[in-house]
Amino acid sequence: MAKKDTFHQHVIEALQKDNWTITHDPLVVKVAGIESQIDLGAERIIAAQKGKEKIAVEIKTFGELSFITTFYGAIGQFITYRTTMRVEHPDRLLFLAVPIVAYKTKFNERVIQDIIKEQNIKLIIYDPHKKIITQWIK
Amino acid sequence: MAKKDTFHQHVIEALQKDNWTITHDPLVVKVAGIESQIDLGAERIIAAQKGKEKIAVEIKTFGELSFITTFYGAIGQFITYRTTMRVEHPDRLLFLAVPIVAYKTKFNERVIQDIIKEQNIKLIIYDPHKKIITQWIK
Repeated sequence: MAKKDTFHQHVIEALQKDNWTITHDPLVVKVAGIESQIDLGAERIIAAQKGKEKIAVEIKTFGELSFITTFYGAIGQFITYRTTMRVEHPDRLLFLAVPIVAYKTKFNERVIQDIIKEQNIKLIIYDPHKKIITQWIK
Repeated sequence: MAKKDTFHQHVIEALQKDNWTITHDPLVVKVAGIESQIDLGAERIIAAQKGKEKIAVEIKTFGELSFITTFYGAIGQFITYRTTMRVEHPDRLLFLAVPIVAYKTKFNERVIQDIIKEQNIKLIIYDPHKKIITQWIK
């Protein structure tokens, strides 16, 4: 199984351990006339619910392309989905799921921190080996 | 020559016809500790000057991957470079160069328009066949 799909399953398991119910896998969002599940270049988005709280999660693996190239794609996809979801899923908060190693080694760069803050990007840090969520950064 | 490199040359020629002097090709920007010219996944950025006006241009080809995947990467790179340049090149305005066909067929989608507006992304629309700039959108 591709690393992307393995990590996808690990994040699902981590959310379930944290008492989230996965409600959509994938969450189909129509972006610029294209349904997201046939947008093969993008990561699949999942949706989960706990009590009244509803979230959508863009799961990033990192490590297949260069970090910065993956980061560009992740930020562009996040912003596009958030803008789209404002109309289609206004009650759902979007998170970017980042593996702990990428978070610890790369996200401390100043420009990355600046962008996360300025763009108000909410993060879920996950440990793909332990299959747990280590941090929610809202 | 790859389409990417051909279009890169066409934009340079189009800017020169418009009385811009190309001052850097590529413009080296250090993004998250990585010098941009060795970031192979990204498009090269060029810098130009006309009188006192200084610009940097991220040239996008579109058409090699799916439109939306290219768009994600373009937006992510644009935002990252703009944030980086604020420190390194505060007097230089960043533009995203988009070929006219992609602009006419794809950029009229509502979500794309919303993102361009909200993120305040400045565009140069170019015709790669005539090698001219058809529109500046500030």
